[in-house]
Amino acid sequence: MTGDLFAPSRGRPRVVIVGGGFGGLRVARGLRHARADVVVIDRVNHHLFQPLLYQVATALLPPGDIAPPLRQILADQANTSVLLGEVTAVDPATRTVRADTADGADRAVPYDYLVIAAGTTDNYFGHDDWAAAAPGMKTLYQAIGLRSRLLHAFEAAAAAPDPGTRREWLTFAVVGAGPTGVELAGQLAALARRTLRREFHDLDPTHLRIVVVDAGHHVLAPFPQQLRRHTQRQLRRLGIEIVLGHTATAVDDTGLTVAPADSHDGSRRISARTVVWAAGVKPVPLAARLAAATNAATDHKGRVVVGDDCALPGHPDVFAIGDIANVHDLPGIAEPAIQQGRYVAELIKHRLGHRPHPGPFRYRDLGIMATISPFDAVADIRGLRLHGPLGKAAWAGVHLGFLVGWANRAAVLATWGWALGTRRRRQQLILTEATG
Amino acid sequence: MTGDLFAPSRGRPRVVIVGGGFGGLRVARGLRHARADVVVIDRVNHHLFQPLLYQVATALLPPGDIAPPLRQILADQANTSVLLGEVTAVDPATRTVRADTADGADRAVPYDYLVIAAGTTDNYFGHDDWAAAAPGMKTLYQAIGLRSRLLHAFEAAAAAPDPGTRREWLTFAVVGAGPTGVELAGQLAALARRTLRREFHDLDPTHLRIVVVDAGHHVLAPFPQQLRRHTQRQLRRLGIEIVLGHTATAVDDTGLTVAPADSHDGSRRISARTVVWAAGVKPVPLAARLAAATNAATDHKGRVVVGDDCALPGHPDVFAIGDIANVHDLPGIAEPAIQQGRYVAELIKHRLGHRPHPGPFRYRDLGIMATISPFDAVADIRGLRLHGPLGKAAWAGVHLGFLVGWANRAAVLATWGWALGTRRRRQQLILTEATG
Repeated sequence: MTGDLFAPSRGRPRVVIVGGGFGGLRVARGLRHARADVVVIDRVNHHLFQPLLYQVATALLPPGDIAPPLRQILADQANTSVLLGEVTAVDPATRTVRADTADGADRAVPYDYLVIAAGTTDNYFGHDDWAAAAPGMKTLYQAIGLRSRLLHAFEAAAAAPDPGTRREWLTFAVVGAGPTGVELAGQLAALARRTLRREFHDLDPTHLRIVVVDAGHHVLAPFPQQLRRHTQRQLRRLGIEIVLGHTATAVDDTGLTVAPADSHDGSRRISARTVVWAAGVKPVPLAARLAAATNAATDHKGRVVVGDDCALPGHPDVFAIGDIANVHDLPGIAEPAIQQGRYVAELIKHRLGHRPHPGPFRYRDLGIMATISPFDAVADIRGLRLHGPLGKAAWAGVHLGFLVGWANRAAVLATWGWALGTRRRRQQLILTEATG
Repeated sequence: MTGDLFAPSRGRPRVVIVGGGFGGLRVARGLRHARADVVVIDRVNHHLFQPLLYQVATALLPPGDIAPPLRQILADQANTSVLLGEVTAVDPATRTVRADTADGADRAVPYDYLVIAAGTTDNYFGHDDWAAAAPGMKTLYQAIGLRSRLLHAFEAAAAAPDPGTRREWLTFAVVGAGPTGVELAGQLAALARRTLRREFHDLDPTHLRIVVVDAGHHVLAPFPQQLRRHTQRQLRRLGIEIVLGHTATAVDDTGLTVAPADSHDGSRRISARTVVWAAGVKPVPLAARLAAATNAATDHKGRVVVGDDCALPGHPDVFAIGDIANVHDLPGIAEPAIQQGRYVAELIKHRLGHRPHPGPFRYRDLGIMATISPFDAVADIRGLRLHGPLGKAAWAGVHLGFLVGWANRAAVLATWGWALGTRRRRQQLILTEATG
């Protein structure tokens, strides 16, 4: 019974994992045969395959296809329970975490080993008040809300008789030219040009405007120059405006003001009824609380600095992995979290006495990829640099491979094929209290 | 340009259709070759296949599969535009409707012919304050919200150490034993017993309680007695409690109080953290406004009484069809709306001068069906009475047939087969602001 979770562990040691993302889920799976009770605590009831989230926001994929329920993934693990709740505090002294649980209570969950893999939240760099006007795209709930916003903008444009107002509704600004911003902008162009164009006879396609703003001087900064250049060229070919070296200085429901990153002179206004925030993320507040509770350092990104065994200094039974932790300053993508999760599972099994010590954590860089358009993606796989259809094929293969569940893989593949063939999307739903 | 919608029609007459449900959509499709401009106005951007809505609420079908966008359905109709907005008033004198349009404006749309097919909303029989504690299931938005509620109840039960609280979370009350209530209760039992049971090791299945309450003395009142008996027997076999002859006298977040329909003596309390309202519907407020504007009568259900040509008395160019209208006092199901829609399209084409007069509207009763469990449904098809697997086969065939779009049919069929085979569901998503 989950009720037992709130009592001290009896006999078998208990491993509490906070977060069912790429890192946390890998720890849980790695412990499926361990002589321990495993508890996964998450705010949401599903594992989210974030790399395809923008395809939910653009009405291509149904949410369920990239978000299998944690309980379904872990149903075959007799030693594992799932608890829906938000962990609010960690107390190494009493070896407990505090959680607001699904039944509305605040409870203490004792642990013998603790793995914090709670991930990140949108970073507005001190302008949290921009969140309402410029929502991010970190959670499934946000992506579905964004989908309604994007589709509603086209409906509003179609309803507005005044061309000026139409243009504002058909202008979409994306803040951030990293993979998230680039992939969202590219998909949005495809949604508008390939799909909606046939459904909105009454809109003038030349009124569509997609603007991507970034403080840096490159799109896809982490990628090699050759691929950055290709991406920028292709985005421009798709009619996407790219404004580099500029930061947002004001954001509201009617648009945003951008200024050169180094000065406020030459600031200009972009009138856009839809602004999406893809400028960056930061660790969830739990990270700072964890650091404070364990006297651990945090880096300039707010990540908890852990040892090369992913444990917190002086707390060998407390681990932090994924975007919330800094070990070797790895990028905030899925692969480091997955490899850290696998590593921590091995290390815990060693401590439990049925595995050799895995040695220190070493990251094996498998590369990065980002998609641009239906037939174009860039990929840098351990020095092998691909773009165009070849890059897209590699991208599709890798993403299908990392999806959890064969049914999801089959469904996503079928949806991609159908959408390419018919230029239609089957999830074009505006869902709000007002409009059902 | 849609902008022209707000100017008087020039040359070609304009047919304004309010509502893209079974009735309204059929009118629009029927007019696709007519020499007229057709405008479909709806609050939502999709056509909803309501007969399968409970399968969205129970995490079986993704919303998009039963809700194709109106613009996608009508994309091939050059003479048809779609306007997202809510029609708030009708003025026959100026031949205009007023609408709150997607861009946030209040505009007048002139018409030459008007078809009101705006449908119904939940009927709380004077207790609208119960809506928050006992949501209905009329819109996709409601169904997705209900899905979160149902799944969250199981998570809350799993998190609650106290057995009493667990029982409350695992008690689900459905008010209304018509097709909606029966189908939801049956699917909920299947969700709990076939799917969630494997994912919640920590819950005691005997704690699950599903109660269906109805003021009448039968389940599925509109069905022949033999099928009502079968349904009641099967529901009880599924462990569903059926409380007939009782109405709700109080509803809140912790449950509801029911009393015999004829007196308040013998009232009793059902502690349930989840209450669903399926007790009945009433025409949207626009119906009363339409009646007032045209001096038409309304019946005891609030439906506008129209002539046997579906037109409002004294207003041959204004039609009301579907659940909002009373012609021959037909039941509030899809088929009458579909046949009325087809009829009104023919009648308008006659008026436009390129079709013979179709004569008065005659309803052809094709029968009724309702599903009970994965392998059992009842059907009364023009006297042919089916139940069990045969009924289910007929039910499945008819429902797939009426779905709009081959891709949707294929997807729904695949989902049904996969769920039957694996006992899993792929849309188990709790989506709230708090839990993502």
